Amino acid sequence: MRAGGRTELWDRAAAACVLTLSLGCLHVIALKSQLFPGLVPRAAGPPINYKTLYFDQKIDHFGFLEDGTFKQRYLVADKHWEQPGGPVLFYTGNEGDITWFCNNTGFMWEVAEELGAMLVFAEHRYYGESLPFGQDSYSDSKHLNYLTSEQALADFAVLIQNLKSTRPGAEHSPVIAVGGSYGGMLSAWFRMKYPNIVVGALASSAPIWQFPGMVPCGDFYKTVTQDFARSGSHCGANIRKSWKAINNVSSTASGLQWLSEEFSLCTPLKNKMDSVSFKNWLQETWVNLAMVDYPYEADFLQPLPRWPIQVVCKYLGFYSTVSDYQLLHGVSKAAKVYYNYTGSSSCLNTSQTATGSLGSLGWTYQACTEMVMPMCTDGVQDMFEPEEWNFQAFSDECNAMFGVRPRADWAGVVYGGKDLAAHSNIIFSNGGLDPWSAGGVTHNITDSLVSVMIPDGAHHLDLRYSNDFDPPSVRAARALEVGYFRQWIRQARKARPKKSTP
Amino acid sequence: MRAGGRTELWDRAAAACVLTLSLGCLHVIALKSQLFPGLVPRAAGPPINYKTLYFDQKIDHFGFLEDGTFKQRYLVADKHWEQPGGPVLFYTGNEGDITWFCNNTGFMWEVAEELGAMLVFAEHRYYGESLPFGQDSYSDSKHLNYLTSEQALADFAVLIQNLKSTRPGAEHSPVIAVGGSYGGMLSAWFRMKYPNIVVGALASSAPIWQFPGMVPCGDFYKTVTQDFARSGSHCGANIRKSWKAINNVSSTASGLQWLSEEFSLCTPLKNKMDSVSFKNWLQETWVNLAMVDYPYEADFLQPLPRWPIQVVCKYLGFYSTVSDYQLLHGVSKAAKVYYNYTGSSSCLNTSQTATGSLGSLGWTYQACTEMVMPMCTDGVQDMFEPEEWNFQAFSDECNAMFGVRPRADWAGVVYGGKDLAAHSNIIFSNGGLDPWSAGGVTHNITDSLVSVMIPDGAHHLDLRYSNDFDPPSVRAARALEVGYFRQWIRQARKARPKKSTP
Repeated sequence: MRAGGRTELWDRAAAACVLTLSLGCLHVIALKSQLFPGLVPRAAGPPINYKTLYFDQKIDHFGFLEDGTFKQRYLVADKHWEQPGGPVLFYTGNEGDITWFCNNTGFMWEVAEELGAMLVFAEHRYYGESLPFGQDSYSDSKHLNYLTSEQALADFAVLIQNLKSTRPGAEHSPVIAVGGSYGGMLSAWFRMKYPNIVVGALASSAPIWQFPGMVPCGDFYKTVTQDFARSGSHCGANIRKSWKAINNVSSTASGLQWLSEEFSLCTPLKNKMDSVSFKNWLQETWVNLAMVDYPYEADFLQPLPRWPIQVVCKYLGFYSTVSDYQLLHGVSKAAKVYYNYTGSSSCLNTSQTATGSLGSLGWTYQACTEMVMPMCTDGVQDMFEPEEWNFQAFSDECNAMFGVRPRADWAGVVYGGKDLAAHSNIIFSNGGLDPWSAGGVTHNITDSLVSVMIPDGAHHLDLRYSNDFDPPSVRAARALEVGYFRQWIRQARKARPKKSTP
Repeated sequence: MRAGGRTELWDRAAAACVLTLSLGCLHVIALKSQLFPGLVPRAAGPPINYKTLYFDQKIDHFGFLEDGTFKQRYLVADKHWEQPGGPVLFYTGNEGDITWFCNNTGFMWEVAEELGAMLVFAEHRYYGESLPFGQDSYSDSKHLNYLTSEQALADFAVLIQNLKSTRPGAEHSPVIAVGGSYGGMLSAWFRMKYPNIVVGALASSAPIWQFPGMVPCGDFYKTVTQDFARSGSHCGANIRKSWKAINNVSSTASGLQWLSEEFSLCTPLKNKMDSVSFKNWLQETWVNLAMVDYPYEADFLQPLPRWPIQVVCKYLGFYSTVSDYQLLHGVSKAAKVYYNYTGSSSCLNTSQTATGSLGSLGWTYQACTEMVMPMCTDGVQDMFEPEEWNFQAFSDECNAMFGVRPRADWAGVVYGGKDLAAHSNIIFSNGGLDPWSAGGVTHNITDSLVSVMIPDGAHHLDLRYSNDFDPPSVRAARALEVGYFRQWIRQARKARPKKSTP
């Protein structure tokens, strides 16, 4: 990890993006979301239809001085809902525009009819349209003060309570939380903290243990490396060699120019700092590929071929020593699989991960406060340049950027760390290809805190629309998940308490 | 409920005191606490000994802008602690000086040796010495903003986490939360929200259902009335008649003077408003007596004889119609049982419940924010003047007093209301004589959310030192409670997760 300083902070924001993508990197999500207004076409399945609604949420659930409200956006689809009492599948929105999550969670749309369920997608505060202080929401740390997971969970709880008490037929509807990635962490935590509100939770690809002291900080990048190693001979080894090659080539002005042309960069590399950013950008590219290594053509983060890492690795199969230039030519071809599969990009933009978009800033703030997720590389068990986890440097950077310091232990205290056995009715699903599985729950904790592994799955594959190329493991996972949903719904109906009122 | 206005607000603070005593009325606690510094004598058992320590707590656990800390006081007694790994009994401090709770929770002291347990008594923020902003803590609603139960629970969690990580031998110690009254509510909620931190909780006389929509608002005063009815013939009926008698007598100046002399009031009644305060004060007296109707001499809120309501009722046994003056003479004698059992009071102070002491203000603020506890009387099923629950008026008064408005539904959402079945390992003990049992959990919810009823018990009798006059029901309750403690400790030792660390 690099030291602080204003310019490098934004570098760090970019790097934080690497570390937290799809948990983070909201600029991508923000761009994507513009593709899907209201009634939208999708890659698979029929067009989906929902109502866009707004709920007046308290800005601060945990204090009474700030009594203002903001409009929280949520989407409702009740075409298949069997009222009264039909279940509700409630998506606990992550760090981005909720319409994007809505459109990328085909699983919920596919099971709605089967379960007679209403679908609700609730936007996370400070993202999309749900801005507590409008355009001022990100203006300073004072306005950012209410951007926490606890506030978001309270939003969800209050919203559901309101839906139940105002929507005819919903009073006794069992509600199941569903979420992926950070949204999956929220769905698990939601069940833990508000079991009165949700009868169970599906936490897909939710790295709830990616916090200090819970899992080794190097496992994330080890998983990325394994994905490349298994997708082509010498593939990971050649990426490991590429960093030194970049260092060598970028040490001269002509080398920088060559690199810029070889990678068709929109903005040519000019100096050493540019080459550091360039390496960060490449590192993020490999991480993103590991996350979206889906068995079919998809455009989750980028339009990509099926099993994209296999395609990438075709360009990185050198089995003997080649020149730095030959190696980097292969790397360039590989990167273009990710950035220019459709052939429509005239140049590659390495600064995109450093964009100060709302979403990206929001997650960076969350990483700088509660969501402290240690990551490290050693260059031996992984294919990256060695970099230790340095909490103090990270904290100093956060302080310089936002005037806040992360609390390393808080997430563990408030969300239970590894001591979860007292909770119930949570499915933790993880993909074996997904680097975030390193911080996920990948073994059963109890009979009702269960792990569902999808060995051939990347990041929350189970939440996506079904596809002919789906491996059997994800089909089985979805069937199991629906089975648990049914069980929780039955339990809830059986156990419904008799209420007395004054 | 009376309408607002600055003067009446303080009346209302006094009345809120009536409604929340021992949950509230902190001036009493503050006075009492001065009797028990450090190493103290008690009514029963040997002197107790503890260390007074302070922990740097974050002022705001749920936001990162306010990063300051304050000194939270806690008391530790580890004489009998069997380390490594011996259990910890952790008192979740209520709205007052922690030394007073420490000295009035003899049960913990008595079972410490038996269980080889460490005792920890943690002070609730904004009470006693644990003031987030020192003398400014109560200066305005800005400084009061961090006085919530959620912040208090987070204090407890962080404190325990710290004790476990810094105290040799405590790392794997199972911790059990114990509390009475509001402290009991906190201990139950603590187990619900932080089952990773405490393996179980004893919530004694904890009215966790005394919130809007959960129990009838009149049950509290009905229980008070029943206590008087069963303690002497015509006793409750005569108190019911006394309000009109006071109205009659106080309608003239000479009547007010007579009342003042008859009741040996320190400050004579001068007008109608004084007589309203006088009635509030009497009403609170009867409530207090119901709470402390213990089977032996005790001085919890006041020095009192054994079964004090029976003693009181000796003066209220008129079986036929008597004059207003005769009736009120009896009421006066009765009140003096409570206020002057020792004979050392030269006069009775009706304004004491209106004192703006820190503790009292703190609870009033909590009642005006989260702790919204509807109470009402009808004069038929209870012995009080009819008074409806009027949330709007209450809210307006809170707004005038603190600039905050209570959130009627929040406690139900955040703490689960009646939907608690997903939780585990909580004992809800209640006394049949205790008016707070009306808002308590008095039936088993599940096998591990159990109700322990003490029919002859008043307010958290089970937490007090054992006494020769204890009824068999409280002896049985304590034995059962210790049995559950042992079971939870065994469970915890068996289930201890294997942790991996980076």
